[in-house]
Amino acid sequence: MKDFLSTKELTKEEITHILDSADTFRELNNRDIKKVPTLKGKTVVNLFFENSTRTRTSFEIAEKRLSADSINFSASVSSAQKGETLIDTVHNIEAMKTDIFVIRHDCSGAVKFVADNTAASVINAGDGLNEHPTQSMLDIFTIRRAKKRLEGLNVTIMGDIAHSRVARSNIWAMKTMGMNIRLFGPPTVIPNDTTPFGCKICKNIDEAIDDADVLVVLRIQRERQGKLLIPSSREYAKFFGVMPRHFDKMKKDLLILHPGPINRGVEISSYVADSDKSVILEQVENGVAVRMALLCMVKKGKTV
Amino acid sequence: MKDFLSTKELTKEEITHILDSADTFRELNNRDIKKVPTLKGKTVVNLFFENSTRTRTSFEIAEKRLSADSINFSASVSSAQKGETLIDTVHNIEAMKTDIFVIRHDCSGAVKFVADNTAASVINAGDGLNEHPTQSMLDIFTIRRAKKRLEGLNVTIMGDIAHSRVARSNIWAMKTMGMNIRLFGPPTVIPNDTTPFGCKICKNIDEAIDDADVLVVLRIQRERQGKLLIPSSREYAKFFGVMPRHFDKMKKDLLILHPGPINRGVEISSYVADSDKSVILEQVENGVAVRMALLCMVKKGKTV
Amino acid sequence: MKDFLSTKELTKEEITHILDSADTFRELNNRDIKKVPTLKGKTVVNLFFENSTRTRTSFEIAEKRLSADSINFSASVSSAQKGETLIDTVHNIEAMKTDIFVIRHDCSGAVKFVADNTAASVINAGDGLNEHPTQSMLDIFTIRRAKKRLEGLNVTIMGDIAHSRVARSNIWAMKTMGMNIRLFGPPTVIPNDTTPFGCKICKNIDEAIDDADVLVVLRIQRERQGKLLIPSSREYAKFFGVMPRHFDKMKKDLLILHPGPINRGVEISSYVADSDKSVILEQVENGVAVRMALLCMVKKGKTV
Repeated sequence: MKDFLSTKELTKEEITHILDSADTFRELNNRDIKKVPTLKGKTVVNLFFENSTRTRTSFEIAEKRLSADSINFSASVSSAQKGETLIDTVHNIEAMKTDIFVIRHDCSGAVKFVADNTAASVINAGDGLNEHPTQSMLDIFTIRRAKKRLEGLNVTIMGDIAHSRVARSNIWAMKTMGMNIRLFGPPTVIPNDTTPFGCKICKNIDEAIDDADVLVVLRIQRERQGKLLIPSSREYAKFFGVMPRHFDKMKKDLLILHPGPINRGVEISSYVADSDKSVILEQVENGVAVRMALLCMVKKGKTV
Repeated sequence: MKDFLSTKELTKEEITHILDSADTFRELNNRDIKKVPTLKGKTVVNLFFENSTRTRTSFEIAEKRLSADSINFSASVSSAQKGETLIDTVHNIEAMKTDIFVIRHDCSGAVKFVADNTAASVINAGDGLNEHPTQSMLDIFTIRRAKKRLEGLNVTIMGDIAHSRVARSNIWAMKTMGMNIRLFGPPTVIPNDTTPFGCKICKNIDEAIDDADVLVVLRIQRERQGKLLIPSSREYAKFFGVMPRHFDKMKKDLLILHPGPINRGVEISSYVADSDKSVILEQVENGVAVRMALLCMVKKGKTV
Repeated sequence: MKDFLSTKELTKEEITHILDSADTFRELNNRDIKKVPTLKGKTVVNLFFENSTRTRTSFEIAEKRLSADSINFSASVSSAQKGETLIDTVHNIEAMKTDIFVIRHDCSGAVKFVADNTAASVINAGDGLNEHPTQSMLDIFTIRRAKKRLEGLNVTIMGDIAHSRVARSNIWAMKTMGMNIRLFGPPTVIPNDTTPFGCKICKNIDEAIDDADVLVVLRIQRERQGKLLIPSSREYAKFFGVMPRHFDKMKKDLLILHPGPINRGVEISSYVADSDKSVILEQVENGVAVRMALLCMVKKGKTV
């Protein structure tokens, strides 16, 4: 596998292989000495065209624990400002014999565009509204660790589905793993193209929670709130937020995931986020392990 | 010791142990190969909520020479902007199995608040107007190296005492080491609560210098000058600055310290700062050694 | 050699030695494991007072492949803002026992000024309008690899010569290597002091290309365009840009260099930049190797 760009084409076997490999690295991360020489002498460039300290830090820690030479290339202070094209920037860094690019970009498709034009491996760390495939892998990894299975689990993805790359990557991958996906959120942000995936749309939060094994609660981006598509914080919390009053409708072993950072009291109450149903911090822990697995899996190769 | 947050509770034995350990690292830093594997496989995160290239660089160099995986997490581009709470940010990075946080924060008490809420070790790199305990350790280390003793030395701390975390950390620690502390500065910035420490307040600079073995000259923050509490640069230099004309009143072996960066011609003249009484650059050198000692000393543990 | 500041005083033997050494590192960079322990335990500080992700990244990769502890010190968030002098900043970082400074500064001469005032080695990564000697070394290295010789080659440097530190460094070094230098550009930016170097000034682009073995096309800085000295993009492209229509006037084995980032369609057309005459990406690749050679060559020493 040269690149890791999307969950769409991944087979069940490939996903299982990624999760199994992440298991090993999760164990390593709980040791006293968290370091292996796997990527020694390899150069990994974190090329972030969009701010993200959290995801970048997760990758940087993963790279350093694998002994790679890890370089942060913040595009905001880069040649992009001098009018250089994206491909020229990438060809330049590639010419320095870099092995892997970890790229986040605010345009959907930009990461694949880069991957198609470089011999280096590319890992998609989030591209526009398109995909965030490493987040999906860590979500599924977290669910598998807790539930010991994936097949047949009922998952509700809740929130601003239309603008969520996490939702898109999860829908593809979870379907492949045989999970049943339902969607819930303000009707204005439930995209029309979900029917093809066979995802049921829930009409209210009771329906969203009913019989669910897993809730994936999405972050509400504050800058969108109170505008055309998303209601105000208070209204959102009232109709779409996961609150303590929903507890007695939940399955006893329900898992609650959130990609973070959470807006306490908006899409999820503090009580719920800090309850034993929440695996939000496990997701963060598993993120490093999953990224270590993926960094080891991609292999530099010729461009087509 | 899980954390290193304050000099207030440190015993004489603990401080002596830190200084002795720093001696070893100072020697290492003067070798040709400045590297030991002590923290190999450990992850240290520099979490700076306030700009500080100087202190951050000192810590980063210390961490790398100890072979730690050193991560810079600049809070200004982080999730703090997305409305995440401090504790959520810390729990997230901790979930990535980080071993040590080095934290600077503009709120007094914020660093202790974090330490109380994480199993990772925390080193205080400066919190608001409260403490800057690693600076105090390097100051005392520098004095001990020059004077071969601490007990009984007369130290005058000069400047904006009220707004100086360096002063506070030094007062606690130097008292513990048996040093006699006097304070001098504009009366508007000599806090009322110094009497409890038994610190004498000097009335003019002659009194401040008279019989002093050590002067700790504090930086005047320009943004405060000319406002209510601090006079203009010229007036400050005239009444509170250490100038060549004070040389003949000084003890021959007087040591002059300054935490840097210095305002030449304001709190200290260039001639004095560059004289052989000044140990300002030794302080910087010793800072790396002291921080190496402290990074090795703290031990991850359960939160209470 | 304590520092590497300028190409002006370099002898033919010294330049040849740098190029030979870079050959070894270029080979290393094409291996699977790109890492040698040469600078293990050494601390290298990249001190950039001017934004430059590209050059900084090239140096950072070079340093990490040599196993140095590499520290980025971005001056824009540093003590410079607090009014500290350049020399005080440098003395402070030097006191942390750093071995090599890689410095870019917007003032001509600032890097030499630092080198004269520190025992650490200094490598000039570009100072104002003065010199950019590592770029010159990688340009000449790229030419030698392609042409197998340097002596007697005809080189035309094209563009805003007056404001180009690349041009200045190249003129000195290429003359030393026995190359024939011609200059071409808007007459307003051809400095009067070129005659002493014996550089011919070309009157039009045909003359610039005629019989040339190498074109060094300089970047036009957009912020200067349309002002007093430099024409608009369209006018520049028409009279001074290298375009496909010049191809049949070019020598068959002409090499086209550009220090990057390129303005496609202004000083060089996309067709030309991506043609087999262009060695722009080889320059980037060779940059890492040349910088590794130079980082290994400089030796810390006493200041005069």
